Order: sequence, then structure tokens, then C-alpha cells
Amino acid sequence: MELEKIRHSASHVLAAAVKELFPDVKLGMGPAIEEGFYYDFYKKEPFTPEDLKKLEEKMKEIIKKDFKFKKIKAARKEAEKILKSEPFKLEILKDLKDDEITFYQDGDFIDLCKGPHVNSTKDIKAIKLLRTSGAYWKGDSKNKQMQRIYGTAFGSEKELQDYLKLLEEAEKRDHKIIGKRMGLFMLSELVGKGLPIWLPKGEILKKEIENFAVEMENKNGYTRVSTPHIAKEELFIKSGHLPHYKESMYPKMTIDDGNYYLKAMNCPIHHLIFGHELRSYKELPLRLAEYGTVYRNELSGTLSGLLRVRMLTQNDAHIYCTKEQIGKEIESVLKMIQEYYKIFGFKDYYYRLSLWNPKNKEKYINEPKNWEYTENVLREILKKTKIKFVEAEDEASFYGPKIDIQFKTVFGREETLSTIQLDFAAKERFDLRYVDKDGKVNNEVFVIHRTPLSTHERFIAILTEHYAGKFPLWLSPVQIKLLTITDRNIKFANEVKKLLEEKNIRCELNDEKATMGKKVRDAELEHVPIIVTIGDKEVEKRTLAIRTLDGKVKFGIKVEDFLDNIIKCISNREQKYEI
Amino acid sequence: MELEKIRHSASHVLAAAVKELFPDVKLGMGPAIEEGFYYDFYKKEPFTPEDLKKLEEKMKEIIKKDFKFKKIKAARKEAEKILKSEPFKLEILKDLKDDEITFYQDGDFIDLCKGPHVNSTKDIKAIKLLRTSGAYWKGDSKNKQMQRIYGTAFGSEKELQDYLKLLEEAEKRDHKIIGKRMGLFMLSELVGKGLPIWLPKGEILKKEIENFAVEMENKNGYTRVSTPHIAKEELFIKSGHLPHYKESMYPKMTIDDGNYYLKAMNCPIHHLIFGHELRSYKELPLRLAEYGTVYRNELSGTLSGLLRVRMLTQNDAHIYCTKEQIGKEIESVLKMIQEYYKIFGFKDYYYRLSLWNPKNKEKYINEPKNWEYTENVLREILKKTKIKFVEAEDEASFYGPKIDIQFKTVFGREETLSTIQLDFAAKERFDLRYVDKDGKVNNEVFVIHRTPLSTHERFIAILTEHYAGKFPLWLSPVQIKLLTITDRNIKFANEVKKLLEEKNIRCELNDEKATMGKKVRDAELEHVPIIVTIGDKEVEKRTLAIRTLDGKVKFGIKVEDFLDNIIKCISNREQKYEI
Repeated sequence: MELEKIRHSASHVLAAAVKELFPDVKLGMGPAIEEGFYYDFYKKEPFTPEDLKKLEEKMKEIIKKDFKFKKIKAARKEAEKILKSEPFKLEILKDLKDDEITFYQDGDFIDLCKGPHVNSTKDIKAIKLLRTSGAYWKGDSKNKQMQRIYGTAFGSEKELQDYLKLLEEAEKRDHKIIGKRMGLFMLSELVGKGLPIWLPKGEILKKEIENFAVEMENKNGYTRVSTPHIAKEELFIKSGHLPHYKESMYPKMTIDDGNYYLKAMNCPIHHLIFGHELRSYKELPLRLAEYGTVYRNELSGTLSGLLRVRMLTQNDAHIYCTKEQIGKEIESVLKMIQEYYKIFGFKDYYYRLSLWNPKNKEKYINEPKNWEYTENVLREILKKTKIKFVEAEDEASFYGPKIDIQFKTVFGREETLSTIQLDFAAKERFDLRYVDKDGKVNNEVFVIHRTPLSTHERFIAILTEHYAGKFPLWLSPVQIKLLTITDRNIKFANEVKKLLEEKNIRCELNDEKATMGKKVRDAELEHVPIIVTIGDKEVEKRTLAIRTLDGKVKFGIKVEDFLDNIIKCISNREQKYEI
Repeated sequence: MELEKIRHSASHVLAAAVKELFPDVKLGMGPAIEEGFYYDFYKKEPFTPEDLKKLEEKMKEIIKKDFKFKKIKAARKEAEKILKSEPFKLEILKDLKDDEITFYQDGDFIDLCKGPHVNSTKDIKAIKLLRTSGAYWKGDSKNKQMQRIYGTAFGSEKELQDYLKLLEEAEKRDHKIIGKRMGLFMLSELVGKGLPIWLPKGEILKKEIENFAVEMENKNGYTRVSTPHIAKEELFIKSGHLPHYKESMYPKMTIDDGNYYLKAMNCPIHHLIFGHELRSYKELPLRLAEYGTVYRNELSGTLSGLLRVRMLTQNDAHIYCTKEQIGKEIESVLKMIQEYYKIFGFKDYYYRLSLWNPKNKEKYINEPKNWEYTENVLREILKKTKIKFVEAEDEASFYGPKIDIQFKTVFGREETLSTIQLDFAAKERFDLRYVDKDGKVNNEVFVIHRTPLSTHERFIAILTEHYAGKFPLWLSPVQIKLLTITDRNIKFANEVKKLLEEKNIRCELNDEKATMGKKVRDAELEHVPIIVTIGDKEVEKRTLAIRTLDGKVKFGIKVEDFLDNIIKCISNREQKYEI
């Protein structure tokens, strides 16, 4: 509340400064917002960065003057007189129902305002103007275009500096900014919100992650399937999605043989695959994996970049197993997750075990013995891992207990990155059965839903932030940039490029006539992990000069040695290439 | 026409035979059809295979009797009398407008019929009853259920025998039968018609084809993207799909920010990718590839297996190039197609060049110079390939000329397997532009649509038929089956399995207690290309006995030699493994 007062007061100070430096400008509105405040002004030309500097100086002057914020009450007639040269303020005045109108004055500046404010301008201890943007008056594109100035204010200089540092860091790591600069993905109004299009370099990232998952899943006895993106209403009634999850699904499409829906989850079709033949106990556990794309109808206003989307490509798999097999399977999934996290360098995470509540009969499927058994199994496994874990009572899904892996991002934000869910409901809903050793049909088939790598969209957003776009060699869309010093070096550079490409190493050659300084800077901006410079000396000795993103440089490296090291680093998916 | 007469006459003979053996049965209708003829009968219980045998014998007796087909005319009253105990025939009679009703009689059997028929039953030289099925009277599910008998008839015994052989062969190669037996794909009423679900073994096939395509496209300078399965109405209006292609698209889905459609083609989003930044001449040709899944709303009654589907995963790519680059690009696509066909062993194909018609101004985009130029370029390229090609005037698309690659299947059926289409329309619709060498913006961007491998669905159906399920080693879902003779051999078999799996070779071990004969037969039924048998002798000498699907056997092969050969055969994508 105090911070909000400071910020709202700062917006008055900004308006006062604008009126001093640009007397013709008309005032709009100026509220406090989460990151600070803004004020909208009517002015033909946008404010320049130069203007912002001058305004910030002027604001500091005003603040120093220790003007008190005085509340002034006025009758409507009088208020109209005060605001006579402010058409936008008059418009606001018209909308006000009260007879008595409130103003606040600091120094000479007076503004239509309900307050509250700090006592004096001096209470605004630290300010910073951040940026400008266009904005329509009252947010309506039929109204006049205003010039908005964003700023922030704090109760101390230290708080401001901390905030600006965080802002800078966040911007450096913002997956939307990095994604655009590196050409990872795009969004288009014509395709629609929340539907990212993977550009060539993002597609490489996506494929590398997928290859890693496929490799890991193959090693762990998974088989792969692929399933359509739409299915009939009847399936989603059977699965329970239509009765319980309809508002998150896209609307139905009616065609000649019934009603179809975009799938919001892959599980129902996987269950059909399990059920389409009578399984033998020898086939269990059956692990069906798919990087499946599902669609969820989120409100358009909530969508942003890759983190809040309507299209989700899930690192999905369903494990069909007997009760006795649950423990071993969960343990193996947890091991897989730890291997993934190690490769991606995720260190700060813990497990959350979500349990049922035996008293809450409404919320949970009525299989007390299965709840008891599996919760114990999960607890024992988690204890063994020696990683911190917490238990959350009454937080399980309707159909079984689950383990969430809670990951702390570089900004300290907690995210559920991976989940493992047990499912007691599918066996009955989908009539999942197998023939046991004695030839009897057994319908106690347990399902484990697991998504260690979340969705491509969310995982790549988090990875981009995690690495600040400086992906490790194996993931980097461009792994090596070759830079030539003069045209005499191009021939050898192309020879090296061919050698690298033969080993499926992704490299680009910059043989333009530019300074080496510029070429290096450009490659660094693209976050290429290894820069190879080739000059006459390199050509003569048939060696390479290598530079990594952290600025380390090494000369005279033999091409074959370089190739060997690169290949080793990539195939081991190492965090860093050491030269 | 003569064949139709024979077959229609045979259907009368069938009806006569039924009336003799099952006097209570009521007659429906019995037309000639493409594969022969059928006749619908009203009878509670279906005809058994035994019944069919007896009926066939009876038909042959009737044919031998050399009954003449006599045309008989009757007034309506009289006709009603003749048909008094045939309620279905009376119903047909009611629908007839004529006063004079025509019957045909052979022997004692008389049937309401317009003809024409052969002269005598003896002209029906060869018959065969094929199968039975249920059918609703007049095809309406509200009507009575009839029993339909299908048969065929020919003018000579030889023709019949040839046809039956072809039928047998077709069944052996039917992708639906093989797909089910090998576990390649499944369909589910709950998911919907025309929406195949890829089972683990089909997924392997699909991935192998996709890997091949990606490898080939990488080598040819393509980059990969991936795009959502839905997009906004506005995109498909811009692309022209909604005005011109709406009935093939799924219905719209309306959500909070507009109307969305499932995409029926990948091109519009690829065009957006091209257009999302101003391209330089240095980026051209830009080749964007995607194995993209599109959805088309075909009528449910037309759908079948993998050949007629609603979900199509296209081997898609779009090449964006200048006019001068068209020739080289088309040539390179044709070369790629020839390489594919060589690997898959497709030999019987030719090119069809579809041209515009300068007089048909309505049908074609009005760019005469581009039509003339590109048609000449395509013609010259096709001439150079020395493969048969034909030209089809007035058969081009609205937006440009195209090359279809016409492939003859093992049954002589002609299929368009691959297409290359030029597109003059996209550049204007999507404002495709680039900056040329002189820094000027040029909007003459030509688009080439190409799908060498068609869709996964169609291509795998055709491949299955082509190979009769005996896929070459590199494609086979299971590449090697290891069979042990006694339990003493299991340890060594597992060692071999591990060695194979380390090299990513897909193998299965059958160590069950069954005869070697049965184990070999089972593996052959699954079309596993290489069967390895391991007995005491093999364990002792640490060698293998190898058997291929064509029945060749070789003993005493060293494990390392076998591994080397297998790996070579797979990585070269050889047609056949030679032992």
C-alpha cells in the first residue's frame, strides 16, 4: 500500500515535469501498476529517449523541493474551471457522479485525483523512467492515440537498483526476446494466439530434446505410438473429459458421422491401444510413449510466448502395469528424471507427494486399499532418493496419488516441471485387462502417466531462461561459427565446414568483408557456443583458433583434435565445451 | 458390355438356384457390379459357406441345361399375379412407371427384369460364388435386413482362374490385412473413421521413412519447421482455402478470440514463416520442410484403411525461389524422387506434365509469361530425364503447372504417388518478397509445393502392398528374430541380442518351448526378414545359422561378420539382405 502511494505520487510528479517541459501537452490518466506507474499524455510526436532523460532530471528537481501533497475539494463548476484547458480530464470529470470533486496539488501542479498520496514529494525516494509506448485513450482503438510513459518508484535507492538489476537480468533471459533474436519461434495473428510456429532453429532445439527423450525411453523399454489430434465425442465421454473438462476443450465439430473434438490429452487413445487386443502378463509393463500435441482452449488474454499456450506438445507416456510392478516403474521414471535434470544442469528441485484424504469420499475414487498401498510405495521410493520431499495431503488427483517435481528457476520462481501420476480409474473406464500366468483374465491394470520433460513449449521457454539463450553445444541450433579474416582463408574455412558437416555438426561460415570484432560480436549475439577464427596463420599450419562464449581463446588446435573433442562433447551432451 | 450381360445373367441363375434349394426365401435385387454380381435375399439366417458350395453346384447344373433367356412382357395386373409371393419384387413393381412390365425367364425361373441377358445359360462359361454379407433392403438401415451373396462370372474358365489368382494375391498384399497381422495400425470407432492410430510397429515404419526423408532433405539444403494443426479463419480466407475448399475442411470452432479451423494444408503457415521477416536474395532458395499432419473432412462412407483417410501426414515442403532458380530446384526435386524410388524398388512410373490452356481465362491465373516460361523449363527438364513423360493440356492447377509422377502398382493400378507444383499465386496473396542484390525489394517469389513421399498413410499402404508386407531390412519393424532350440542356447542368444541392440538393430528372441518348425513359421508370418537359429552347435562354435524370408539358409556365420553385413545392409537401405 505504501509502495502504491509512492508510485501514484511519482506519476503526479511525472505529469508536473511534463507540463513544465512540454506546456502544450494535454494530460490523460496516470495510475500505479505492478511494476511502478505510467501516465498517458496527448502529444502528436512520441517522447524521445532524450525527453525521458530530461523528464527524469526535472522529476528529481521537483522531488527535492519537498512539495506537500495537498487534498483540495471543489464543486463541479469550480472543477470545470480548473480543468478548462485539459479536455481529457474534463471527459473524466463528466463520468464522475459526485458533486464534490477531489484534486491533489503538489507545488504548482494540480491534478484531478482521489488519492491517496504520500505526504511530500520527498517521500518518493527513488524513481526511474523505463520506456514509452503508444496507447489509445481509455484503451479504445476508436479514440485518440496517447503517448504513455512508464516508470517505477521505490522507498529507497537500493530497492530501485535491485529491481533494475532484476529487470536487466530478466530481459537478458526472457524467452520471448531470446526466441525472437535467435529465430526459435514466431507467433502470428493469422494463426492465432497461443499457437507457436517453430522456426528452423527452434525446430532443431525441439528435435534435439525429442531425440534425447526417445533415446532415453528406448533404453528404458518404452515403445512409441502416434495418435490423431481429433477423436469422437464418445471417446471423451468415456474418458470423463467431456463431463469434467469441457471448458478447457475446443468446441465440437459436427460432421457426417458424429461429433469430433480436438484432444486435450493423449491418454484416452493410448488406453484404446492397450485395450485393442487381449494382453498377456508377458507384455506388462507396457510403456507407450508419444510426443503428442494436444489442444486446450485457454482464454486468449492469458496467453504469452511459449509459457502460456493453447497447443502443447507433451513428452507423454503411459505405463500399464500390475500392482506389484508399480514400485519398480516409478523408481525407474524418477531415475530418468534425475538423469534429464543432470544433463540440463537443473540442481534446485524437490519432490512433492500429493496424497488423498480418506475422509473426503466425494473427491477421490473409492479404492482405499490401492490408495494406501501406492502411497506407501511412493513414499518409500522418495525416501530412498535422498532428495528433499514434502507431502501434501488432500492434494492428489481424483484417480490416484502423484509426485510433482518442483523446480526453482534462476529467478527463484517455483515451477512444476515434471509429474508422475498413478491412475486407478482408467482400468475400469477402459476395461483394461490382461491374461495372467494361470490363464485367468485380470482387470487390475494400473496406469502411470508421466511427463518428465513437460511440453516442448514450456520446457524450451524454461531452458531458454535457464541458459539465458546460451544453450550447451549439443542443443545449440548453430554449434560452430567459422569466421575468416581475409578472402584468402575462405577455401580452408570451407574445407573445415565440410568436415564438420560430414559429422552432422551444425555450422555456419561468415566470410563477409567485416572486421573480426564485428563478426565475433554478431556470433556472440546469436549465442553460438564455439567461434572458430581462421586467418593466414591457421591456413598455413592447418590449425584453428577456438573461442568459446565465456571469452576463452585457444590457438593452434589441430582440426582432427577439434573434431574429436566436439563429437565427444556433443554425444555426451556435456554442459560446457572446455577448450 | 458382354461381360455385364454374362454377370447379370449369372445373378438370375443364382436366384434360381436359391429358390430351388431354399424355396421359402424371398427375392430382392441382383445387379451386375464391377467385380461380378450379387443378389439380395430375404432369409432369417445368413447363408453358410456350406450353402454357397451347394448353390454353386446347383448353378452349374442350371447352366448346363442350356436354358434360353426369354423376354416376357406383361400388363401390370398380370405382373402382380406373377410376383404375388415376392413382397420385395412387388415393392419394385410399384415404383415402376411403365404400363408394360418386362420379365426374363430361364427354365422355370422368372424374374422382374429389364435385361439385357445372354442368349442361354450356357453362355455363362465360368462362375464362382465369393462371399456373403448382410445388406439393408434398398440400402436403408430402417428397412429389413437381407442376405447378400456375391459372385463373379466370366466368358471363359481361364479368365475366372486369372481373376481368382489376382484376388488371392490382392488379399495377400492387402495393407489392411497385413497391417492388422503385423500390428502396424489400428482404427477405433471411438476415435472415428479415417483416423488411423499408429501402433508401435507401424510407428517404426513411419519413423524410418521420416528419417530417410529428413536425411535426404538435409542433404539437399532444406530446413525444418513445425506448425500448429489449427489456425484462424482469416488465414484460410487469405490463402483461398475457405472460399474454394471449404467443403473438404472440418467445421469451424468458435472461441473467445475468433473462429478456428483444422488446417487442410500446410502451405499457408509456411508462407507466413517466409513472410515474417524481410528475406535477402542470399536466403533464396529457402526450402521449408515439415512432415505435417492435415485434416480433411471426407465423407465417412468413402473411408478405408490407410488409403482413404481424414488425417494425412504429408511429406511436405515449400521451396521459395526466384524465377531463374525454378529450373534447378525442380531438377533437384526430380532427382530426389528418383533416388527414393530406387531405394523402394519402384520401377514402373512415368511423368505427367499438366499444362494450362491459354484460352481458358477463367480457370487459370493471368500470368501468361510465367506460364510460358515455366512450362518450357519443366518440359526441358523432363526431356532430359529420359523417363517417359506425357503432357496433359488444360490440366494444371489454377496457380501453375505441375508434374505428377504416375506409379503403376503391382496390380497395374495407376496412382499419382508424388507431385511437384509451381505456384504463381502465393507471392501476391501472401506478399512474398525479398531484397535483391541491388537492395531493391522484389516480389517475384515463386513457390514450389512438393510431396515426393505422398502422405505417411497412403505411402505405407502402397509400400505394404508393394512388398506384400515383406519390408526390406532397414524398414522392418522387427529386423531379426532369434530362435533357440533348447534352453541351453538362451544364454548365448541373449548375448547376441545384446550385441545387436547395441547397434540399434531391432530384434526379438523367441526362447519358448516349441518346435523349431513352429517358431520359424511364426516368424515368417510376421514377415521378419532374418531368422537366426541358435542350437548347441552354434553355442559351441559361437556362430549363427541365418535364414532369410525367401527360404535361403546359411550355417556357421561368425557373429562379427553377421553384424557387419547387417549394419551395411541397413545403412545402405538395401532392397534385400543377401546371405
